[in-house]
Amino acid sequence: MSSSSKKLKVGVLGATGTVGQRFILQLADHPQFELAALGASSSSAGKSYAHAVEGRWKQIRRVPNNVANMQVYECKPEHFAECQVVFSGLDSGPAGPVEDAFRKAELRVFSNAKNYRTDPLCPLVVPLVNPEHMEILPYQKQQMGTKTGFIVTNANCSTTGIVVPLKALEQRFGPLEKILVNTMQAISGAGYPGVSSLDILDNVVPFISGEEEKIEWETAKILGGIKSDKTAFDYHEQDPLKVSAHCNRVPVIDGHMECVSVQFRKRPAPSVEEVKKCFEEFSTQAQEIGVHSAPAQAITLHQEKDRPQPRLDRDWQNGAGVNVGRVRECPVLDIKFVVLSNNVMIGAATSSVMNAEIALAKGYLQ
Amino acid sequence: MSSSSKKLKVGVLGATGTVGQRFILQLADHPQFELAALGASSSSAGKSYAHAVEGRWKQIRRVPNNVANMQVYECKPEHFAECQVVFSGLDSGPAGPVEDAFRKAELRVFSNAKNYRTDPLCPLVVPLVNPEHMEILPYQKQQMGTKTGFIVTNANCSTTGIVVPLKALEQRFGPLEKILVNTMQAISGAGYPGVSSLDILDNVVPFISGEEEKIEWETAKILGGIKSDKTAFDYHEQDPLKVSAHCNRVPVIDGHMECVSVQFRKRPAPSVEEVKKCFEEFSTQAQEIGVHSAPAQAITLHQEKDRPQPRLDRDWQNGAGVNVGRVRECPVLDIKFVVLSNNVMIGAATSSVMNAEIALAKGYLQ
Amino acid sequence: MSSSSKKLKVGVLGATGTVGQRFILQLADHPQFELAALGASSSSAGKSYAHAVEGRWKQIRRVPNNVANMQVYECKPEHFAECQVVFSGLDSGPAGPVEDAFRKAELRVFSNAKNYRTDPLCPLVVPLVNPEHMEILPYQKQQMGTKTGFIVTNANCSTTGIVVPLKALEQRFGPLEKILVNTMQAISGAGYPGVSSLDILDNVVPFISGEEEKIEWETAKILGGIKSDKTAFDYHEQDPLKVSAHCNRVPVIDGHMECVSVQFRKRPAPSVEEVKKCFEEFSTQAQEIGVHSAPAQAITLHQEKDRPQPRLDRDWQNGAGVNVGRVRECPVLDIKFVVLSNNVMIGAATSSVMNAEIALAKGYLQ
Amino acid sequence: MSSSSKKLKVGVLGATGTVGQRFILQLADHPQFELAALGASSSSAGKSYAHAVEGRWKQIRRVPNNVANMQVYECKPEHFAECQVVFSGLDSGPAGPVEDAFRKAELRVFSNAKNYRTDPLCPLVVPLVNPEHMEILPYQKQQMGTKTGFIVTNANCSTTGIVVPLKALEQRFGPLEKILVNTMQAISGAGYPGVSSLDILDNVVPFISGEEEKIEWETAKILGGIKSDKTAFDYHEQDPLKVSAHCNRVPVIDGHMECVSVQFRKRPAPSVEEVKKCFEEFSTQAQEIGVHSAPAQAITLHQEKDRPQPRLDRDWQNGAGVNVGRVRECPVLDIKFVVLSNNVMIGAATSSVMNAEIALAKGYLQ
Repeated sequence: MSSSSKKLKVGVLGATGTVGQRFILQLADHPQFELAALGASSSSAGKSYAHAVEGRWKQIRRVPNNVANMQVYECKPEHFAECQVVFSGLDSGPAGPVEDAFRKAELRVFSNAKNYRTDPLCPLVVPLVNPEHMEILPYQKQQMGTKTGFIVTNANCSTTGIVVPLKALEQRFGPLEKILVNTMQAISGAGYPGVSSLDILDNVVPFISGEEEKIEWETAKILGGIKSDKTAFDYHEQDPLKVSAHCNRVPVIDGHMECVSVQFRKRPAPSVEEVKKCFEEFSTQAQEIGVHSAPAQAITLHQEKDRPQPRLDRDWQNGAGVNVGRVRECPVLDIKFVVLSNNVMIGAATSSVMNAEIALAKGYLQ
Repeated sequence: MSSSSKKLKVGVLGATGTVGQRFILQLADHPQFELAALGASSSSAGKSYAHAVEGRWKQIRRVPNNVANMQVYECKPEHFAECQVVFSGLDSGPAGPVEDAFRKAELRVFSNAKNYRTDPLCPLVVPLVNPEHMEILPYQKQQMGTKTGFIVTNANCSTTGIVVPLKALEQRFGPLEKILVNTMQAISGAGYPGVSSLDILDNVVPFISGEEEKIEWETAKILGGIKSDKTAFDYHEQDPLKVSAHCNRVPVIDGHMECVSVQFRKRPAPSVEEVKKCFEEFSTQAQEIGVHSAPAQAITLHQEKDRPQPRLDRDWQNGAGVNVGRVRECPVLDIKFVVLSNNVMIGAATSSVMNAEIALAKGYLQ
Repeated sequence: MSSSSKKLKVGVLGATGTVGQRFILQLADHPQFELAALGASSSSAGKSYAHAVEGRWKQIRRVPNNVANMQVYECKPEHFAECQVVFSGLDSGPAGPVEDAFRKAELRVFSNAKNYRTDPLCPLVVPLVNPEHMEILPYQKQQMGTKTGFIVTNANCSTTGIVVPLKALEQRFGPLEKILVNTMQAISGAGYPGVSSLDILDNVVPFISGEEEKIEWETAKILGGIKSDKTAFDYHEQDPLKVSAHCNRVPVIDGHMECVSVQFRKRPAPSVEEVKKCFEEFSTQAQEIGVHSAPAQAITLHQEKDRPQPRLDRDWQNGAGVNVGRVRECPVLDIKFVVLSNNVMIGAATSSVMNAEIALAKGYLQ
Repeated sequence: MSSSSKKLKVGVLGATGTVGQRFILQLADHPQFELAALGASSSSAGKSYAHAVEGRWKQIRRVPNNVANMQVYECKPEHFAECQVVFSGLDSGPAGPVEDAFRKAELRVFSNAKNYRTDPLCPLVVPLVNPEHMEILPYQKQQMGTKTGFIVTNANCSTTGIVVPLKALEQRFGPLEKILVNTMQAISGAGYPGVSSLDILDNVVPFISGEEEKIEWETAKILGGIKSDKTAFDYHEQDPLKVSAHCNRVPVIDGHMECVSVQFRKRPAPSVEEVKKCFEEFSTQAQEIGVHSAPAQAITLHQEKDRPQPRLDRDWQNGAGVNVGRVRECPVLDIKFVVLSNNVMIGAATSSVMNAEIALAKGYLQ
């Protein structure tokens, strides 16, 4: 392809894992990015990609032809010299030092790992919610002493789903005061092999390590702003948002369901009809810019009384938007509703890719 | 058995259905009750019980030998003349008029159906929570013009699970102010054939018709008291308890999981340790009287961070108690925790049978 | 669309059911067929299609826009006067007389129902196997006294999967002598609501009514030929193929797995390598003609030792081909292997549509 | 308990694993055996049993009180000096040398591991089938130079289920010629964590490593006899039994389903009615001796057309017998039927314990 020469060369770290495989599928024929290097653990290094994922490729689409024969390298910057951007699907174990090394080597890192989410210099960006947090990147580069290298993280899959409708509400009705969320999360959120079948068949596990804490503080960082001098995020410490999460694992393959109750600062609180209208009309910067992976609808509002459902709705818009339903009054807080998001798409790889598309459109990759 | 002549003769209405089958298993060798008559729809009438349930008996235990050859009758009082008590596992369609006819025929009806739960004369009794509501029975009989006939109902399966720990909290710490509950309910709650496998495999359905409303008002009736003249229930109308429920169906066979957040009126609110101690020390009238089906522990408090779980804990104590775990602070209300109850046992048949045992012990069956 | 005027107008009978919904999706933007009329039961008649399937549409793709507002009619030929072809997804109850009425009204009926599969005048066509059986159609029309009306049926979903590789074997190695097949069938094969979740979660049901008999005789009809005068099918009565089937329902949504052992008449029997080569090289008339819905590969031979698998392979080629794996020697018969086919696609709607495409290409629809 | 002093002291190797946990439950209150020592890997050694299995105890019954505080040791004979018998639930990795060391230390080893199943001196005993194979034990001791130490193995879980009805057939009708079996095996057969939920939810995996080979040769050893001089087993090499197996993993927690077709040497083959009668009348030595864990019925013949089923029938008789159903003619071989056995009970721990009970009754433990 002659046109590919104009594409930005990108790499994938952790390319053989569950999230890595999704990156491969999204990038194999991307109009702006060209997959140029693959990194994985030393046990995969030296093999062709097809060989490295043998017995571990759990996607319905086959390994793309143009990727199957690419060689897999260790996750060291010298093997990614051609690339300008890397996407990281690394586990949190190796992600910390590896991603930092790539940043120091002047690569832009878009990471799905949790390590830098809490970093005061790193934006935690859900592309349909807070792309403006990338405005801290010049300051991050200045502080880290890099010319082009930076790290952008995306959120935990269960956080991603709820912040989209919460952002819609805050944008129209002003700050929220309290959020109570109950998750029913898919097994794919735990990677592969992840959850033992003996733990989840005919069962619910009412605990996911670290997950409730992540939802509680990630939501605050994402819905908070960025200070006017673009050097720090704004957590509204004086008047913090209260978030409470109950997290559960359920026997569903893909798609996190979340039941949400919210209380507004605004009194009287908006009505059910106003909230529905707000969801239907919500539009995001990613859509306005028209980036490649943005869904036509950031929020799909379901009218049926028993939707959304994971199996029927998770693949709508290739899993790039979120699904909301059952908007109704909450007798304890103000309004309650149900959210479904595809944890392996918008909840993981799609968010990283969309973040890079936004960064490209906004000039952060020059 | 010569001793059986001293047992109270009882019947089962809706004996061939899902709840009816559980009644059969509980009553087939009960020390105080003797199964003397079985009622079902006209399509089963005239058959032996074993024949009537052929292809529909979905229990691990076989049809008890002493029941297999009993004849099934239509649900008319004339076929139950020998009985003093009937247990009703009828669907809500026929339950209304049939249960009333049996009451008029001077039978004591312990019903699992929803029809009379809202009736201002009928006690809605969870045996581990509010047996004192039976004190309205003399007034019910007076109003209905019966000598012995009355109706006692038990609660919806998803209500039953949560009111046990909520009662423990109210008993020790005083009235609750707000309750937010999220259910993940087993398919057996919908009866047989009930939920289509195409609707629930690899899926969650975030809606169960009428369920959220039932939890919201049943909880108020059960946790409320009875007026001092024993002629009405007390809903604390001036200062009502606020209950909000999100109800979901999950691919679990038996056992309803519920995530609960509560707010106390008492300030400061009790601590996590005080709440745990309260659950561990909770003891109920059913246990104190020592009725046959009462569990050794009304509440089993789990220490492991990921318990209770439906598959592992639903059969503990033959499903007659409730399981509580993960007691912790709630950033939005005061305290949050997880409850698991066996929806077909304490959530259905076991509650009716235990209510009758309590009524017997308290002299209501004389 | 001006080009649509050149398309053949088609109707769907049983349009609201499980198979009917698949027909809708396949026909909504078909290059040769234009959806012109929809039929269903009287309870749906008079409604828009979107309204008629409300709460019953269980597809991941939405109701196509150009179908949503089409009116649904009763399944009477007068409402399909515009059409030249109808696809029938009717249940076997109504299918018999209704399909016959449409044939008498000079419509070409491509049916997924079982009623006419055993009819000595009706071809039972798996499009990747025996399209030449349509050569009996002139004789069918002559016998029925129609000018253009006829009925073509496709096979039961569990038969369809196995006859494709069996045909490949017979074509290369001559007649088979014995076939032993064990099926593990998806719940979608039973329609909606179909299998109760209480019957199949954490379970296998080793019985599907009528299924073993269907596999045993349908295989014989399909693999048999057509007599040289094109007035009857050839079952090789002197030397009949022996087929034995064990049928099981398993908790899988879509995709029938079948373990097959075969014995050839040819001695010595072909080797494992010869059989693999035969599968890889198998090509069908549907592919040679190049009909729209034909898969690129009629048989996909998997190399991995644990494939095919329903969840990973059922959607390959949009479910229009079959997947074969684990070809190895059988210590009892000659060769054994595993087959996976998508029961709702090639096993149902896709077969009917492909049969119509073949009929069109071969001039049977003029 | 004073009576416990008369019990035989036993140990469990691999006590913390899936099979080990079942041994604990079976031995905690056994009338003849007293649990005296527990062995596990070095990571568990030194802990109390309750502590060692924390987070890994996946049984519905709690850890027995009398076992919870027992200390866990490494699997070295010096820690089992008090014991006369050990039960091994070790993985095949460590099982080989460890079991041999215990035999050398004069302990009787009853093993569920596969390592010594093929050993020409070790009996491979399914207690309901071939306890007479223990007659080789004196010769084993002589060859190994031990006074009391020996190894008895039990069979693979999928073999165990089918050999019970096959033995019944051979006992009445003489030798079988061909057996074709298709398994649908539960996830618990793979231990914990075992099968990843991502591999099995909404799926079937048509491959279990080594399983088909095990069924094929274990069946031959078990159904074969023991030579008259009690020094070797008889495989009928001149006229070997042909066994062909297709093995599949299905989303079922416990209980292996197997579809079996058999061909007899006897012509004409027995009729369906004769085979049913044979199954109903089958009685085994274990039952005749009256050993503690023997089921009342070795084979339960189901009359319903869709039984046995794993979820409904696996716990019948505490999983100690096998369930057979759907006996009918096979168009390819002679007779076909369905078998269900509980893979963690009769398929694993129960077989080892019953073997030891038989050995005790027959004087092999003196």
